[in-house]
Amino acid sequence: MEAVKDLVNDANFDCSATGFSLQAMDSSHVALVALLLRSEGFEHYRCDRNLSMGMNLGNMAKMLKCAGNDDIVTIKADDGSDSVTFMFESPTQDKIADFEMKLMDIDSEHLGIPEAEYESIVRMPASEFARICKDLSTIGDTVVISVTKEGVKFSTRGDIGTANIVCRQNTSIDKPEEATIIEMQEPVTLTFALRYMNSFTKATPLASQVTISLSSDLPIVVEYKIAEMGYLRFYLAPKIEEDEEMGAHAEAVQTKSKTEAKPKKETKAKAESKPSVMETEDEEETTESKPLLESKPKLEIKPDTETNGEVEVMDVE
Amino acid sequence: MEAVKDLVNDANFDCSATGFSLQAMDSSHVALVALLLRSEGFEHYRCDRNLSMGMNLGNMAKMLKCAGNDDIVTIKADDGSDSVTFMFESPTQDKIADFEMKLMDIDSEHLGIPEAEYESIVRMPASEFARICKDLSTIGDTVVISVTKEGVKFSTRGDIGTANIVCRQNTSIDKPEEATIIEMQEPVTLTFALRYMNSFTKATPLASQVTISLSSDLPIVVEYKIAEMGYLRFYLAPKIEEDEEMGAHAEAVQTKSKTEAKPKKETKAKAESKPSVMETEDEEETTESKPLLESKPKLEIKPDTETNGEVEVMDVE
Amino acid sequence: MEAVKDLVNDANFDCSATGFSLQAMDSSHVALVALLLRSEGFEHYRCDRNLSMGMNLGNMAKMLKCAGNDDIVTIKADDGSDSVTFMFESPTQDKIADFEMKLMDIDSEHLGIPEAEYESIVRMPASEFARICKDLSTIGDTVVISVTKEGVKFSTRGDIGTANIVCRQNTSIDKPEEATIIEMQEPVTLTFALRYMNSFTKATPLASQVTISLSSDLPIVVEYKIAEMGYLRFYLAPKIEEDEEMGAHAEAVQTKSKTEAKPKKETKAKAESKPSVMETEDEEETTESKPLLESKPKLEIKPDTETNGEVEVMDVE
Repeated sequence: MEAVKDLVNDANFDCSATGFSLQAMDSSHVALVALLLRSEGFEHYRCDRNLSMGMNLGNMAKMLKCAGNDDIVTIKADDGSDSVTFMFESPTQDKIADFEMKLMDIDSEHLGIPEAEYESIVRMPASEFARICKDLSTIGDTVVISVTKEGVKFSTRGDIGTANIVCRQNTSIDKPEEATIIEMQEPVTLTFALRYMNSFTKATPLASQVTISLSSDLPIVVEYKIAEMGYLRFYLAPKIEEDEEMGAHAEAVQTKSKTEAKPKKETKAKAESKPSVMETEDEEETTESKPLLESKPKLEIKPDTETNGEVEVMDVE
Repeated sequence: MEAVKDLVNDANFDCSATGFSLQAMDSSHVALVALLLRSEGFEHYRCDRNLSMGMNLGNMAKMLKCAGNDDIVTIKADDGSDSVTFMFESPTQDKIADFEMKLMDIDSEHLGIPEAEYESIVRMPASEFARICKDLSTIGDTVVISVTKEGVKFSTRGDIGTANIVCRQNTSIDKPEEATIIEMQEPVTLTFALRYMNSFTKATPLASQVTISLSSDLPIVVEYKIAEMGYLRFYLAPKIEEDEEMGAHAEAVQTKSKTEAKPKKETKAKAESKPSVMETEDEEETTESKPLLESKPKLEIKPDTETNGEVEVMDVE
Repeated sequence: MEAVKDLVNDANFDCSATGFSLQAMDSSHVALVALLLRSEGFEHYRCDRNLSMGMNLGNMAKMLKCAGNDDIVTIKADDGSDSVTFMFESPTQDKIADFEMKLMDIDSEHLGIPEAEYESIVRMPASEFARICKDLSTIGDTVVISVTKEGVKFSTRGDIGTANIVCRQNTSIDKPEEATIIEMQEPVTLTFALRYMNSFTKATPLASQVTISLSSDLPIVVEYKIAEMGYLRFYLAPKIEEDEEMGAHAEAVQTKSKTEAKPKKETKAKAESKPSVMETEDEEETTESKPLLESKPKLEIKPDTETNGEVEVMDVE
């Protein structure tokens, strides 16, 4: 919730017989968040009719914070009602709390997100990824993520200097939650705003591993699995550098991304690529993140606003 | 100290042969705090003459924070002196600190608080009560406390929705510090400002249980026992809702408090009582907390300002 | 680093074959910090030519915070380069980070600090000293440190009252890190600004003991040993009270410092010395800390700015 709340104020929760889902874009239309909780994951789940509930996520988080750690949480919404009820019962039934929250009418379209083939998929410890995003944001504003067979490199550049962090493929260890696994069809180098990345990584407590999917012309997908129930996914459009479309610069950038993958020659490579990098930096202010909505076709727009129904979700936390 | 400091800036500490006491009202004259530490509770206590010491509680807290956890604390005041000395000695006597604090002349009357018969007395875990006040204050500004034989209900209402937390009578458990015990002569429903409640609950570390005494026309008493020594008590005048004095509304409110005690029929009851609740809310702005001083007669005004003496208090923390 | 960063923004790190050193004054020229890390303390240390690197300490701290606890840290600077590289390698070599920071041209002279004979040297637990400075700064702005054979006394005075903390000589205990040892040639009483002391004590995590050296006309030295490698030293000029140079007052102050060392007669002594203390306090605003640069001759000014070279420092943290 914290991670979602950071990006989005209000969102529609869609309830159907198969589960509970949420999809919302941040106000700048650069990042999208998608949550899925399958009905199998709840101890008791009943949804008689599809229902879309517009909630203020800040207020929802306030109410959920009032639940005790071992409380049984029940979420209840009646057909046609303008409110949702959260019930928290202590294990001994000595304390029973019910919180009623007003619902909102939110005008939103359900965007279908195509299941794309990604050029590179990195699976790594979620805490490691969070640490890297946090560390890099003390130096710069954007992160360049480059994937090669050997590893994934996160780079940034700021007023005080530069930083490169390389995580190597690492599959042979005993603890699968500490593995770093790279499935690469094509090497990719993409640039993202660290501000959004640091919002996404607030979901780190949900899962031990994070999966990062990258393709040249697609938004990055940062996915946290929610144990046996579903997932929380973040989509972020890459920053487009205008010079990438111009011949000479594109080549220079290409050179850079190739040489940087070989740490041994790094010092030399850096010297060579410096001019182009410097220009890239200068022009960064004139480049903008391509809004997500434009960067891919809206495949299955299905407005859910007419549907109404009764939904009852019961979950043992 | 933290709990008291929050409400009151300056207060007179009264020392006599029987113990150490403090009584002070907050600046708005809505809440009163009373502290009693009996002389038996100190390892060594000597008070030759009654003495009233006016102290700034913020400064006193600053000085007491300088004591180590295992230090022997000695509080010393000489006859006619305008200062009090706090001495902190480490168990090994290797570190000895003395802090001298200037006293103040505080104009105050010692209010006698009548030992009233309360219609309902609730004893519950102090941490549970603190948690409830904190949780409710994320939703609303006031808490309605309703006591019935089955349990005590804390309710609030705010812009984002409503909340009801019911704690059931619970005496049969092994751990007495987790019990919730209700002694009820008469069901009571009273409204209080959560802001004060959250100040009171800063005293939670003092005791495992809190005792809450309620009567229709009296201030609430929130009491924390201080192990074998005395108590820290908070008094708070209830918020008076004007419509309570009017027939129709009073009945509606009555209905509400009765029906809400039966959680099974809650949804229906809530729908019925809604109109009156809405009006209550609207009028809340025109109602005000009755100042404590007016809500009960001043029984034993005994100005202690002339008394002077020598007092020496020694306490092993 | 935190302790140094607090006092100084930019500083020159001097690298030579024998080690790594830093010396810098705070902007008000009242405090001086000196760091020495001998080459023997590093696992691998190579420095081909003397090199002075001007670094912004805030930026350096940002980058060093990106190192993991068990990382191997390598600091590298090339001859004639305008940047320094910090490399952090995880123990398993799975994560390799390099951070490049721009260097600065800092105009500074290397001050030679004469090895003086101090009248009193106090060695005490670093955490105890930090606690005392923190506690006293809740009461006043300056600390008077008085050393006698029996112990060291820290006193302050502020609007809300006064405080005296005495730490007694204590050598016979089993744990040497908890000892308080006083080597006294001559009793000393000196006054210092607590603001600086509280900056110095940020170095407390470095060492279990702190060594405080005091002489009437010299800056205090607060030294933290860095295990087997070197030290971090802070120098602070005492506050000079003008009346000390005048006969009558000097005597009164003298009396005070003598009597205060005997806690038994303290109350009486305090009463006697009060007039002078009051005057001292009044005049404090007109007195100023003697800048360090003037309080001692510059012995070995050796400007290192021309030297240039290559340095490579490797350290296992």
